[in-house]
Amino acid sequence: MAFNLLKGKKGIIFGALDENSIAWKTAESIHAEGGSFVLTNAPIAMRMGQIDELAKKTGSEIIPADATSVEDLDNLVAKSMEILGGKIDFVLHAIGMSVNVRKGRAYTDEKYDFTTKGWDVSALSFHKTMQSLYKADAMNEWGSIVALTYIAAQRTFPDYNDMADNKAYLESVARSFGYFFGKEKKVRVNTISQSPTPTTAGQGVKGFSNFISYADKMSPLGNATAQDCADYTVTLFSDLTRKVTMQNLFHDGGFSNTGVSQEVVEKFTE
Amino acid sequence: MAFNLLKGKKGIIFGALDENSIAWKTAESIHAEGGSFVLTNAPIAMRMGQIDELAKKTGSEIIPADATSVEDLDNLVAKSMEILGGKIDFVLHAIGMSVNVRKGRAYTDEKYDFTTKGWDVSALSFHKTMQSLYKADAMNEWGSIVALTYIAAQRTFPDYNDMADNKAYLESVARSFGYFFGKEKKVRVNTISQSPTPTTAGQGVKGFSNFISYADKMSPLGNATAQDCADYTVTLFSDLTRKVTMQNLFHDGGFSNTGVSQEVVEKFTE
Amino acid sequence: MAFNLLKGKKGIIFGALDENSIAWKTAESIHAEGGSFVLTNAPIAMRMGQIDELAKKTGSEIIPADATSVEDLDNLVAKSMEILGGKIDFVLHAIGMSVNVRKGRAYTDEKYDFTTKGWDVSALSFHKTMQSLYKADAMNEWGSIVALTYIAAQRTFPDYNDMADNKAYLESVARSFGYFFGKEKKVRVNTISQSPTPTTAGQGVKGFSNFISYADKMSPLGNATAQDCADYTVTLFSDLTRKVTMQNLFHDGGFSNTGVSQEVVEKFTE
Amino acid sequence: MAFNLLKGKKGIIFGALDENSIAWKTAESIHAEGGSFVLTNAPIAMRMGQIDELAKKTGSEIIPADATSVEDLDNLVAKSMEILGGKIDFVLHAIGMSVNVRKGRAYTDEKYDFTTKGWDVSALSFHKTMQSLYKADAMNEWGSIVALTYIAAQRTFPDYNDMADNKAYLESVARSFGYFFGKEKKVRVNTISQSPTPTTAGQGVKGFSNFISYADKMSPLGNATAQDCADYTVTLFSDLTRKVTMQNLFHDGGFSNTGVSQEVVEKFTE
Repeated sequence: MAFNLLKGKKGIIFGALDENSIAWKTAESIHAEGGSFVLTNAPIAMRMGQIDELAKKTGSEIIPADATSVEDLDNLVAKSMEILGGKIDFVLHAIGMSVNVRKGRAYTDEKYDFTTKGWDVSALSFHKTMQSLYKADAMNEWGSIVALTYIAAQRTFPDYNDMADNKAYLESVARSFGYFFGKEKKVRVNTISQSPTPTTAGQGVKGFSNFISYADKMSPLGNATAQDCADYTVTLFSDLTRKVTMQNLFHDGGFSNTGVSQEVVEKFTE
Repeated sequence: MAFNLLKGKKGIIFGALDENSIAWKTAESIHAEGGSFVLTNAPIAMRMGQIDELAKKTGSEIIPADATSVEDLDNLVAKSMEILGGKIDFVLHAIGMSVNVRKGRAYTDEKYDFTTKGWDVSALSFHKTMQSLYKADAMNEWGSIVALTYIAAQRTFPDYNDMADNKAYLESVARSFGYFFGKEKKVRVNTISQSPTPTTAGQGVKGFSNFISYADKMSPLGNATAQDCADYTVTLFSDLTRKVTMQNLFHDGGFSNTGVSQEVVEKFTE
Repeated sequence: MAFNLLKGKKGIIFGALDENSIAWKTAESIHAEGGSFVLTNAPIAMRMGQIDELAKKTGSEIIPADATSVEDLDNLVAKSMEILGGKIDFVLHAIGMSVNVRKGRAYTDEKYDFTTKGWDVSALSFHKTMQSLYKADAMNEWGSIVALTYIAAQRTFPDYNDMADNKAYLESVARSFGYFFGKEKKVRVNTISQSPTPTTAGQGVKGFSNFISYADKMSPLGNATAQDCADYTVTLFSDLTRKVTMQNLFHDGGFSNTGVSQEVVEKFTE
Repeated sequence: MAFNLLKGKKGIIFGALDENSIAWKTAESIHAEGGSFVLTNAPIAMRMGQIDELAKKTGSEIIPADATSVEDLDNLVAKSMEILGGKIDFVLHAIGMSVNVRKGRAYTDEKYDFTTKGWDVSALSFHKTMQSLYKADAMNEWGSIVALTYIAAQRTFPDYNDMADNKAYLESVARSFGYFFGKEKKVRVNTISQSPTPTTAGQGVKGFSNFISYADKMSPLGNATAQDCADYTVTLFSDLTRKVTMQNLFHDGGFSNTGVSQEVVEKFTE
């Protein structure tokens, strides 16, 4: 599908690691819809991934940035405007990482240095990104900023660990900054609460494939894929959704509002 | 337990059918806490149940009332004040019934006469009750009105059928009437969203025991029982919760905020 | 704007009264995006409005239907498929009316015949519409059904009266039917919770222009207009939002997640 | 009022600064209800307040603890069990502080050292407290843990600044830890979302008295006071609310579910 929905729009995309990434699919879709962008990722993530390939495919430049570093972000914003030739219309924040999860620490046995690092990378980085954009007056009016999140911010999924709390913080930042970005610059800020998605990052979570299967059976339309998420993000970057702001938008095939499905309750048949 | 929490308080209790009823347990608990009340139920429900026994045990009188009949409700309110010797401090609405469920009609094959009847009994009856109380100026200041509801008002449980929509309406009535009852009479109105409870009424729902087992495993503290609900309702009728109003209060062992439990996801282990 | 987003898609649009109607604007936008549709409204509303003009402009046919009549709805669905030459891709339900409001009855002084009529027109009609579509197997896979609602379903706005309860019921119907339509037919069902909009219908509500001004000042991006809503609805009918279902989507410039704005709190400066 | 609701129960109370504190009022109410407890606060807060007076009045001991220090918390938990002669039944977390607010930094101009410090004190401290209790197996079965929060976690109040994000994190911690504490130890964890309260801490927020007046007019029962909150907390520590867990409980006179009140909309009358 290609509708020219983002013709002439310029943006920044965080978090494209490899072709399983939602950010990767979104970059491809935005490109197909006529948008142009700068790609960015943490230096370490860039070495692990294939972002060069994506840059080539989409005619994009890459600016490495540690999303916890204000200096890096300020540089990213300045360079992006230079490269793209003007202010920014859209930003995708697709970053998240829990050191506690990686190191196998249970939620009831957190190491707080790990917690702080994970919070900084996964949640505070969204504030830092927006503050850099805001201070540089880098967003065009009616621009759109989106971060990816997960329903663990509302309900407990035991293996999701401290990422739940990070996502709750992230969603709050979207509302809080959305207020000021709306009032002062007519920019909207939203989060997409996506189905569990078998990205490379998601695979760190214990028992993930069973969980994906559970979520799929709890979702009347099935899990939303990375490509589905790319499509949806395109609508949020388009001019057709200008008055949607400060929202957490569930994009999950109906999971969030399904109390139980017939398939799941059948597992409890004696 | 008995703390004299409701000493001197007078009320009306709808929906005590038999000793499995939440309303029955609540009546007993209120009696133990020093409250007095009138019992009421639909004439037909009264013939099926053992409400006389409850009345005897708690020293209460019974006033039959069809909760869809404004005339019956007006009479109930007037008689209750007469019997109890003054205005009312608390009201429990524990009524619900779907004709579509009883007649085995699927949600996608509703008979709308049935739908309307179920809505009137289960949802509009709460408005009618409050309007009778309001017009008769029958509530004391800082009185408390509670209706029982279920989380199907927020999320779909396929077998719950049109009761989901009725409960959504009921909860909205609690908010809407709670605004006016708060402003004008300093009366609070709340709903308790209770775990699935094996009452006689609940047993009409298909596959109910499997479902109870599922809910129990999804609730970190297990399902709340009818007696638990009675205890909780006592706190909402006491003077310790005077500023809680227009709320839907989940009383469910944590079900509502649990995305998945380890026991449930294990059922999806390959 | 025109992107061909709805090229080849066929639908039914309820509730276009005059050019202030959200449904009217949406019909125009859908037409511009390449979609075709049947227009429908209650016979009485059709006499009051200018729907003929819209039909002419968009090359559409009109099928009158009382949305509370199953017979009329069954006829509407059958005729629409005939006219459009196949199954339906999108449906917009934009109907609502409170007899209590029209007759000046306060929320605490409802006349229950009025309440029932308003509920049937505003809320149950959405179930009836979907049941007619479902039984006739009239929806294409990945079709999209949208109803318009208002945040009074979540929070009390005193002048909104019993429409609050009707909207709560309507939103519940979207979730409940969305479950079955999703599972069985891969059709999504959502509600858009729109800013207060100065339509002809909205003007019946007391003090409406003051209220619109309040809402505008509470919304960081200002109130969403009827045209904004048309744009947003187009995205929900497009193939870019296939996994969004059973959601209530706030389209309100941020009102729903703004606790207070600086402009509003300033009114309380001593 | 005194009902002996907490007879024999033992706990820890954080955050009693002076007699305006919610924690102070709660300590007095718990004492009146037969509970005993240890008081704790940060060393610096203790020098500023009159906690000695409260300790004397309630026959309590004081254990200073920096709630961001795991070492201090571990010591607090161990000493409390020693002093109280056994495991803990209740814990009140009433701590919050934003360095950005204190230093006059706008939300769009955060200094991230300040942000991190405020997050640690206001939000992570709740996790640290529970982790210390959990690891020491210090809670009795059916114990109850409560933290105070504010509706800014759900909706933006511009002057509340980064405390909104901290409260969102705190509420998520309540859910996440509540899951594990429920499953493993039958302990419940909830947050009370309290009306704005003119405590000494609250007075740091700009324009606070105007805001209190606004909130009061938006709340059908008026703002909940510190004493109201103490009463409500007593119910949550009692055995009558054993199945309430992982909830955020609005205690606000109805503010949270009021879209607008007549008094507020009247300010917009032309």
